[in-house]
Amino acid sequence: MRIIIFGVGAVGGVIAASLALTGQDVLGIARGARVQAIRDKGLTLRNHDGSVTTPLPCVESAAEITPRPDDVILLTTKTQDTPRALDDLRAAGFADQAIFCVQNGVENERLALRVFPNVHGVNVMMPAEYLAADEAVCFGRTNFGVFDIGRYPQGADQTDTALSEALTAARIKCFVDEDVMQCKHGKLLVNLGNIVEAALGRGVAAKEIKTALMEEAQTIYRAAGIKWRDMGAGDPRRGTLLVVEPIDGLDRIGSSTSQSLARGAGSIETDFLNGEIALIARLAGTDAPINARAARLANRLAREKRPAGSLTPQDMAAELGF
Amino acid sequence: MRIIIFGVGAVGGVIAASLALTGQDVLGIARGARVQAIRDKGLTLRNHDGSVTTPLPCVESAAEITPRPDDVILLTTKTQDTPRALDDLRAAGFADQAIFCVQNGVENERLALRVFPNVHGVNVMMPAEYLAADEAVCFGRTNFGVFDIGRYPQGADQTDTALSEALTAARIKCFVDEDVMQCKHGKLLVNLGNIVEAALGRGVAAKEIKTALMEEAQTIYRAAGIKWRDMGAGDPRRGTLLVVEPIDGLDRIGSSTSQSLARGAGSIETDFLNGEIALIARLAGTDAPINARAARLANRLAREKRPAGSLTPQDMAAELGF
Repeated sequence: MRIIIFGVGAVGGVIAASLALTGQDVLGIARGARVQAIRDKGLTLRNHDGSVTTPLPCVESAAEITPRPDDVILLTTKTQDTPRALDDLRAAGFADQAIFCVQNGVENERLALRVFPNVHGVNVMMPAEYLAADEAVCFGRTNFGVFDIGRYPQGADQTDTALSEALTAARIKCFVDEDVMQCKHGKLLVNLGNIVEAALGRGVAAKEIKTALMEEAQTIYRAAGIKWRDMGAGDPRRGTLLVVEPIDGLDRIGSSTSQSLARGAGSIETDFLNGEIALIARLAGTDAPINARAARLANRLAREKRPAGSLTPQDMAAELGF
Repeated sequence: MRIIIFGVGAVGGVIAASLALTGQDVLGIARGARVQAIRDKGLTLRNHDGSVTTPLPCVESAAEITPRPDDVILLTTKTQDTPRALDDLRAAGFADQAIFCVQNGVENERLALRVFPNVHGVNVMMPAEYLAADEAVCFGRTNFGVFDIGRYPQGADQTDTALSEALTAARIKCFVDEDVMQCKHGKLLVNLGNIVEAALGRGVAAKEIKTALMEEAQTIYRAAGIKWRDMGAGDPRRGTLLVVEPIDGLDRIGSSTSQSLARGAGSIETDFLNGEIALIARLAGTDAPINARAARLANRLAREKRPAGSLTPQDMAAELGF
């Protein structure tokens, strides 16, 4: 099994480094500056134990790879970059290889299934950050993260088991789950708060807003008949298998949404987080006004290249209509 | 009611010109060369009766428009261009205005509903072509086309009625339908043959291939519980309300897919036609190998900028696995 990591960002970087460090055959696909830094210096995995560096073969496009039948591909881009990644893989000749969507939200799997027949979902709980081009930082102590893995739209197969074992051996604790989208719908509820943290800044109290977003979403799930498993405070793996702690001398930026605003990416994943709730609501003949406004606000902040933390809680509550 | 046509291509051009000619308040959004030509010369609608030219206000981006509450937006791009159009509209400040997806396939409505609350589907039967930058050509005699219009995911409202009346008065015969996606799923079956015509060239007999694509899709629809209405030979409006005839001195290129290959667009809509069938199949736990291979083939032809008509029926049958 060769493991191709499409998107060596925060999560993709930690996965690539940890798998490479356990001797797996890993190949990264990343943007130019990242590829150059990794070629020059290797990829350094930094966590509470210190730093360790591994060489990692890295390319800028799938076009530079000759597909092999034993390849598995881990998509670790944000959702707005998934269509381009899928096109790149198809143009390179990938066809029946397993595609694992190691991504937040619940739309990536559907995007992939339009193009490829063998698609898997991965529920990602991993406090990772991208702070330097030759580095992957993980704030998870003992385990780097906790994943649930299964076939999309449901089921599980031997490739899920094989990848789970490889990841677990690399300190990413995996569970094979025949209904992985239930986990991902649960995780989506947690990610609805990403835009709050991104807009207000890390550590600003905004419990009321986060609760309103989440409760609206749960109401919509129930109306649409969508089942989910608690991936928030009620998940017993938090605090046991997943222990998030600060690393001395490192400031966290926070969620992937905050990281997008912080680097002025111009695009943001909120259409596939809070916007997903709006879509589910409208398909079910109702609406989700708070999440819909949150998605609209996020896109404006990204478009205007506003930094993380540019709003007050009062501003944001007003923007969301309460 | 101001009618904004996003994508003044073949279908969008005929709609824009015919509405403007009946005195409707119409505004076009189009690519640079088209906008320049229309500003310089107006938009000429050419059909069996001859040519008639109308002025048409035209811009390159929604950013140049100040949204009005009475705007309705007709999306007439191909599906691969829909996300960019939606972003452009949202950035310009459009929010609650009705968005009509006047497009082939069944994915545009879902894409739009993620971003906007008020989305409508339009089933398009209109033999239009884009042959020159200042011209819209229509091969429909008497009526320029026949449309079904309704709210997405279902229902119908006053805006459907208002737009239907405006279009019907402009010689585009409209029917309001509370389950318009049944019409669009029927039309999708007809569009599965677009790639055959595009790959083989117009007029090359390939009944066996087209039938195989369509029969596979019907099997998949039944497996997935998708209902459709016949929009092919069994639609009694064909030959009565919709009469397609040659225009002296004009060669038809053919379907929108053929037009994309002919102009070397590099992208192609087949992922949202034959690829939709593959997706529906996989979501239902089965597969649609012939349509899946057709989508893959189409993307290769577009990527390699192969002209329309570059394959023989034997080549194509082999590519599709029979």
